[in-house]
Amino acid sequence: MVPQWVIEKKRDGQALPADDIRAFMDGYTRGTIPDYQMAALAMAIYFRGMTFDEVATLTDVMMRSGDLVDTSRVPLPKVDKHSTGGIGDKVSLVLAPLIACCDVAVPMISGRGLGITGGTLDKLESIPGYRTNLSADNFVDVLARCGCAIIGQTATLAPADKKLYALRDVTGTVPSIPLISASIMSKKLAEGTDALVLDVKWGQGAFMKSLDQARELARTMVEIGARMGKGMTALLTDMNQPLGRTAGNALEIVETVAALQGHGPDDLVTLTLETGAHMLRLTGREPDHARALARLRGVLDSGAAFERFLSMVTLQGGDPRVLEDVTRLPSASLRRDVSAPRSGYVAGVDAERIGRACVVLGAGRVKVEDLVDHAVGISGLVKIGEHVTKGQPLFTLHANAENRLAEALALAREAVTFADSAPTPPTLIVDVIHPAGGR
Amino acid sequence: MVPQWVIEKKRDGQALPADDIRAFMDGYTRGTIPDYQMAALAMAIYFRGMTFDEVATLTDVMMRSGDLVDTSRVPLPKVDKHSTGGIGDKVSLVLAPLIACCDVAVPMISGRGLGITGGTLDKLESIPGYRTNLSADNFVDVLARCGCAIIGQTATLAPADKKLYALRDVTGTVPSIPLISASIMSKKLAEGTDALVLDVKWGQGAFMKSLDQARELARTMVEIGARMGKGMTALLTDMNQPLGRTAGNALEIVETVAALQGHGPDDLVTLTLETGAHMLRLTGREPDHARALARLRGVLDSGAAFERFLSMVTLQGGDPRVLEDVTRLPSASLRRDVSAPRSGYVAGVDAERIGRACVVLGAGRVKVEDLVDHAVGISGLVKIGEHVTKGQPLFTLHANAENRLAEALALAREAVTFADSAPTPPTLIVDVIHPAGGR
Repeated sequence: MVPQWVIEKKRDGQALPADDIRAFMDGYTRGTIPDYQMAALAMAIYFRGMTFDEVATLTDVMMRSGDLVDTSRVPLPKVDKHSTGGIGDKVSLVLAPLIACCDVAVPMISGRGLGITGGTLDKLESIPGYRTNLSADNFVDVLARCGCAIIGQTATLAPADKKLYALRDVTGTVPSIPLISASIMSKKLAEGTDALVLDVKWGQGAFMKSLDQARELARTMVEIGARMGKGMTALLTDMNQPLGRTAGNALEIVETVAALQGHGPDDLVTLTLETGAHMLRLTGREPDHARALARLRGVLDSGAAFERFLSMVTLQGGDPRVLEDVTRLPSASLRRDVSAPRSGYVAGVDAERIGRACVVLGAGRVKVEDLVDHAVGISGLVKIGEHVTKGQPLFTLHANAENRLAEALALAREAVTFADSAPTPPTLIVDVIHPAGGR
Repeated sequence: MVPQWVIEKKRDGQALPADDIRAFMDGYTRGTIPDYQMAALAMAIYFRGMTFDEVATLTDVMMRSGDLVDTSRVPLPKVDKHSTGGIGDKVSLVLAPLIACCDVAVPMISGRGLGITGGTLDKLESIPGYRTNLSADNFVDVLARCGCAIIGQTATLAPADKKLYALRDVTGTVPSIPLISASIMSKKLAEGTDALVLDVKWGQGAFMKSLDQARELARTMVEIGARMGKGMTALLTDMNQPLGRTAGNALEIVETVAALQGHGPDDLVTLTLETGAHMLRLTGREPDHARALARLRGVLDSGAAFERFLSMVTLQGGDPRVLEDVTRLPSASLRRDVSAPRSGYVAGVDAERIGRACVVLGAGRVKVEDLVDHAVGISGLVKIGEHVTKGQPLFTLHANAENRLAEALALAREAVTFADSAPTPPTLIVDVIHPAGGR
């Protein structure tokens, strides 16, 4: 394999043979192929794309560049979900213990927030003591004991992806659907799951601003997983307004607890149950969608999912008392209600502006090394289609600094728009995508 | 300037501001911008192209990355020519002394052969003692004393181009017209010329296989030069058959001497005179094309150009006796005439196959570090349109090893094709390109 010949093939629009992809990526991971050749190939992939077979090979070789989590000693079907990220998305936190209550194991390796997008790990770390950096062995221990576990990426998981991602970040090759897909899937499939449900978000608050792009990303990831022998389904979902009514780490834990106790906001609960039903189908636990939904709703209402969440948090070193009494979670020193400047229907709640307001408050990161303030964020957000009267609160800002509060206020206030007649609310789940070959 | 933002702009199809190009290339040359960012930008340029203004800025910054040759103490207009390379192309060797006889100085910095394409420096080094590695000062001395000088690129000339070319070679970013143009022009314009005539070749034996590509390259280089204040003209010329009747270093010196003595092959002489006439026009020495041609023809026939060549060779350390008696040039131990297998008209002499045969004989390089055998090559080549009778020689191979001779014979024999009726000979000079703004 001559590296520049591989680059030239892709540059000229050819599909790369699997052997070329394997040899190139192995060489890059070992350091015998330099960054500049990888950068040139990545840019050629940006322009020329990759077939599903090529992306599956790329994913496989990146996944196998490090350790694979061995979950075989947990004698249950395993399923996970992955979201491409959004504002207020705490579905994973509700879903993992919920599905674990259905005789299915959920081995979940999650990420941190970056930019306007929140991260599951940051939300969990609002819980004092919660450890997201378990070893693979301890991760499987927790999984075996309570049916779910949520940790961060270990150092030995998909190192090729870590190396490539850092390079893409500085070479203008991040927004390439094949490279995004391989990056996500190489990490997700290293965690030892049999099946995966993807929540691919589109809209102002999502990484994919257009529905077409989101659909292409969803389709690509579903096809990769299918080629790697995994049960795959993707939901295409709305991220033009935040999910649920809170954004910010501890505030989202409060909403997570509410949902686990059966009184979460409609959109959060709907998306959680729908995603969960696909997870139950893929593991063979409940092939009928309506019955799966009903079963999951019952588990939520019974409080069993909440109990399971308490177990997981406790096993991972967290203090469960802050979940039983959420007033003990980190809270901000400043609160400011923002009220409606007019009466009318809520026409839009711009997720991107809300996300930027949260970053300003300190809930998110601008750079990877930034520290997160777990207490700050936004709660009580109105939803599109709701009627408000002038002076009624639209949301509450939680801040720890006056200057940040003022800046976030200006951003968040602009996020909410109004109409005189009731608007059509956005469709939460736009489409459900299965592998073309079926599975 | 954030390097990845520059990469992203080009990736997204925007024209880069001059400041961005300057800062990026300065950083790359100094080493503060790493190879991988340059490689990503080069690949984005491959796909998105560059405007003439962008390429002119890129050329200027690469040219200024090193020393500029100061020819100001030579009180004559200066003009040079550059060929994109072909098989049997010895025009520079005839043209430099010819133009020097017309009160114009020709400061020529030339290249070596690589692949099937011959190089002016290799041809000159067939002359025992000839030094192609003069310092810039000595180069200008020779120029001042005899009106022409031909050397190789010095270490301090356009180092940014050297660095970028080495990177392009291993990242699949060589065949990009903006990058090729900037590479050629940054070196050519560092040599202190006022005007430049380009010979851009197209066809089987040229770097540009299609006329359209060659035209785009010619147009780009002409526009760059015009933006940098140089008089510019480009000739689009045929390289589907070799130029002249010889290919190989010492053999081409023999043909050069013949041309300088007024009896060169028609195509070589025509292209030399036509190119020269444009050089005289650009320097203001002779605006009328027909009169310029007649003047140059007279200089050739008078023997003055040959005398000038002897002076230049002598000043550069070469032994002029080998030019006065060309049997003293390096010669090969094995000669083999190849005769026509049938009677008919020569329909094609595939320049690419002839070039490969020369490489097999040892006249060219596969890798930059290969040594060249100056004695070997092909002489007495038939030309398209000539009539041959069965058994008449088509060409003579000159070799120093039986196995190389056999391999080259097979290649070269296939190069010549026949027809029953007289074919239309290819047009030698397809077009003449001037800057759009005129000059």
